Amino acid sequence: MAEHMDPEEFRRAGYAVVDWIADYWTTLGQRPVTSQDPPGTVAAALSAGPTAHGEPIEAVLADLDRVVTPGLTHWQHPGFFGYFPANTSGPSVLGDLVSAGLGVQGMLWATGPACTELETVMLDWLAELLDLPQRFRSTGRGGGVIQDSASSATLVALLVALHRASGGRWRETGVDRRYRAYTSTQGHSSIEKAARIAGLGSDGVRPVEVDPRTQAMRPEELRAAIEADRAAGVVPAIVVATVGTTSTTAIDPLPEIGAICAEYGIWLHVDAAYAGAAAVCPELRWTHDGLEHADSYCFDPHKWLLTGFDCDAFWVADAGELIEALTVLPEYLRNAASESGAVIDYRDWQVPLGRRFRALKLWFVLRWYGVEGLRAHIRSGVALADRFAERIEADDRFELTAAHPFSLVCFRLRAADEVSAELLRRVNATGRVHLTHTRVDGRYSLRLAVGSPLTTEKHVDEAWDLLAATATDVLTG
Amino acid sequence: MAEHMDPEEFRRAGYAVVDWIADYWTTLGQRPVTSQDPPGTVAAALSAGPTAHGEPIEAVLADLDRVVTPGLTHWQHPGFFGYFPANTSGPSVLGDLVSAGLGVQGMLWATGPACTELETVMLDWLAELLDLPQRFRSTGRGGGVIQDSASSATLVALLVALHRASGGRWRETGVDRRYRAYTSTQGHSSIEKAARIAGLGSDGVRPVEVDPRTQAMRPEELRAAIEADRAAGVVPAIVVATVGTTSTTAIDPLPEIGAICAEYGIWLHVDAAYAGAAAVCPELRWTHDGLEHADSYCFDPHKWLLTGFDCDAFWVADAGELIEALTVLPEYLRNAASESGAVIDYRDWQVPLGRRFRALKLWFVLRWYGVEGLRAHIRSGVALADRFAERIEADDRFELTAAHPFSLVCFRLRAADEVSAELLRRVNATGRVHLTHTRVDGRYSLRLAVGSPLTTEKHVDEAWDLLAATATDVLTG
Ligand SMILES: Cc1ncc(COP(=O)(O)O)c(C=O)c1O
Ligand SMILES: Cc1ncc(COP(=O)(O)O)c(C=O)c1O
Repeated sequence: MAEHMDPEEFRRAGYAVVDWIADYWTTLGQRPVTSQDPPGTVAAALSAGPTAHGEPIEAVLADLDRVVTPGLTHWQHPGFFGYFPANTSGPSVLGDLVSAGLGVQGMLWATGPACTELETVMLDWLAELLDLPQRFRSTGRGGGVIQDSASSATLVALLVALHRASGGRWRETGVDRRYRAYTSTQGHSSIEKAARIAGLGSDGVRPVEVDPRTQAMRPEELRAAIEADRAAGVVPAIVVATVGTTSTTAIDPLPEIGAICAEYGIWLHVDAAYAGAAAVCPELRWTHDGLEHADSYCFDPHKWLLTGFDCDAFWVADAGELIEALTVLPEYLRNAASESGAVIDYRDWQVPLGRRFRALKLWFVLRWYGVEGLRAHIRSGVALADRFAERIEADDRFELTAAHPFSLVCFRLRAADEVSAELLRRVNATGRVHLTHTRVDGRYSLRLAVGSPLTTEKHVDEAWDLLAATATDVLTG
Repeated sequence: MAEHMDPEEFRRAGYAVVDWIADYWTTLGQRPVTSQDPPGTVAAALSAGPTAHGEPIEAVLADLDRVVTPGLTHWQHPGFFGYFPANTSGPSVLGDLVSAGLGVQGMLWATGPACTELETVMLDWLAELLDLPQRFRSTGRGGGVIQDSASSATLVALLVALHRASGGRWRETGVDRRYRAYTSTQGHSSIEKAARIAGLGSDGVRPVEVDPRTQAMRPEELRAAIEADRAAGVVPAIVVATVGTTSTTAIDPLPEIGAICAEYGIWLHVDAAYAGAAAVCPELRWTHDGLEHADSYCFDPHKWLLTGFDCDAFWVADAGELIEALTVLPEYLRNAASESGAVIDYRDWQVPLGRRFRALKLWFVLRWYGVEGLRAHIRSGVALADRFAERIEADDRFELTAAHPFSLVCFRLRAADEVSAELLRRVNATGRVHLTHTRVDGRYSLRLAVGSPLTTEKHVDEAWDLLAATATDVLTG
């Protein structure tokens, strides 16, 4: 008989791992945010192959401390300001732990009824929390699902849009390369990737010019592109508008874009991967104006809503179309519940077959924080970003390069691009903060995104002090 | 300032959740395997929306017991014999807990060097554990990556195959609908789904006949299909061979299929989603004979290797081709390490951008069990399946409908299909076991798949006793 870890041993080892995490969070602020070790350091410190006989968890935890954590970039660190946050929280970790312990598979309703139903209800809760249009609620023809990422959500939206554009032939006979996807030049790289995966190729995406001041899509440019393409025999299948672009959190004008999509019968997908979470606050809901025109919408609770990766929330206005596009039903998955038509089988809403019970972490987060707790978190991120932006504006050597409606601030030195790049390199090399960069209208910009629950005014002020002092160094040589 | 769960509160609540899981595992065998509640029961028991103010974890755990667990199908239950197992283990849960606590994003090497390097090393360890061909090791041009599922692995293999078949044009100009994918009639439904997603449509998959005795692909049928298609202007792009088909665990003849793929220059992907784990045992490695011909290979540690979903292990013989097909590089993801060419950025190996630190659970499992511990688990599953199959063979009312090289047994009553279907309904309705069904060569068959670490001889014998007694009822009434 095989030996497994029995419940009592799990209890003991489980406490040890919980302690390990609590200690990690307690000491996180004292670690360097990123490792400065060269590539291969971690791999070289691991043994060459698996051992014949098992070892206790304590031995693994010791190597975790010795080899793994020193080699990480710490995304939950209070000095982590890179990319967009991928924040998590105690309740999320605990919900996910329950999911791991249950080890259920939610591919079909029948393989885990509660797994499916809790997910449907959580997506309705989220829709209420963000005040999303009624059309996305499961009470009508719409509904929500958890995808692993915004990338996958965009891919799924594209697939259904292609199915619709083809009059239902796509699913059997394949994609027509005359179809095209539209997004602004600031649309996320996952849109080009989705187009490739779906067989349109990178050429299947038409980038639409933005207003250089706002970095938002120019609706008249969208219309012009559609008209020109149609005249050339191209079939516009989908527009992906962004609320909160990756570079600068620009907001595409949904009302105008929605009207154009309606006019030409084009699928509108709204990608609010990072910024969607802002809509939990009534005072930030203007960022979603016009969303009622969208056929699909997604945002990532795993970015700014305290829910660990992976958790993208994706809604469609017409679930039937989505299911029709993606369902494949072999004999071994047939079951009475699916055939009754009374249940949701989420495997038909996504690329993979299998599904983890991810609704649990959302449930834990929504209940532990409550609506007000989540609002406080978003407001704190916005306030910290405002505070940092004020410092930038008060120092003549710096300038903001974009508006900052959310918790991202883009800025640069009033100097050559290389000077800002050098500033970034030097502050990151201290290990005290981690920022990343982008280009805004061609010019190099630093990005400071606030999001870790551990980040407070003190950390933002320290980041500013470090930047200001380092600027003196790089500007003077 | 927003309120978050502090480390001490996390410690306390974390212990409570660990206790909850230990208790769940201890009492699992006494629960019904599946819920008998009608659709909507769980949703109706949840509150209508999120509450304004947060609640303690204890309140959520109470509702977990009241609403969620009674509404589940328990995949880790010792009486769960459905589908294929999706087993997990204590070490996997703990490794995943560490991952949740760290909350790092491994999309690029730079965003989590240890996250990337541990993954590369774990995939090399797994390759050694299964004695996979050298071409898949990261020491050469090949390498492995964790995908969420075998479905996604097959999709990625198809995409690179299309890229190769197009001479590198696929990535810019899109898919050519003359390309075709081949798999046996027993190939998994994810192959058709991948073909749809990739823009070939369901018609882009050509099902190849199997030998009715073995349910394995007939190489001469594959050759005939390829020849006929080529004559008709179709371009064969990929063959997906299966080691352990979903219905019956049939094994396609890789040496012959590999030779055909080599002859015609077709990508060979081997899908061993469930059965791949068997190769940890030297006496079962014959099931992988001919794998050296494959361009890509995948199996799911989340099925039969004690690692919780999601964890599919996917290897390619030429990583460069894969990266070329899928990479998209926007400014905001540029970094010195990527540009050095010395590191792996796993985002280019998969559909989503973001990545969870899934290598940790594999590391915990491989170290806690050791090679011998994992072998004991596989051997126990095979032995239990053999034991069950002996019972079937010893009872004249039953017959086996397929060979059982692994831990799945397919069988039926020697009676009309409806009688076997009724047998399945009745045994599942007891809540003591859960089996699923399939069709083998057109005839209805029950499937009993062993895989939960909790399942022992006692549970298999009880399942048999229940089936035998229920058979008496359905055959006489
Ligand atoms: C606007 C936008 N869309 C999509 C993505 C991709 O996110 P994911 O990792 O969830 O695919 C990002 C990531 O930063 C993003 O900013
Ligand atoms: C042979 C085979 N391939 C692929 C899959 C799909 O698995 P996943 O859920 O990992 O996509 C299965 C699932 O049972 C399978 O049996």
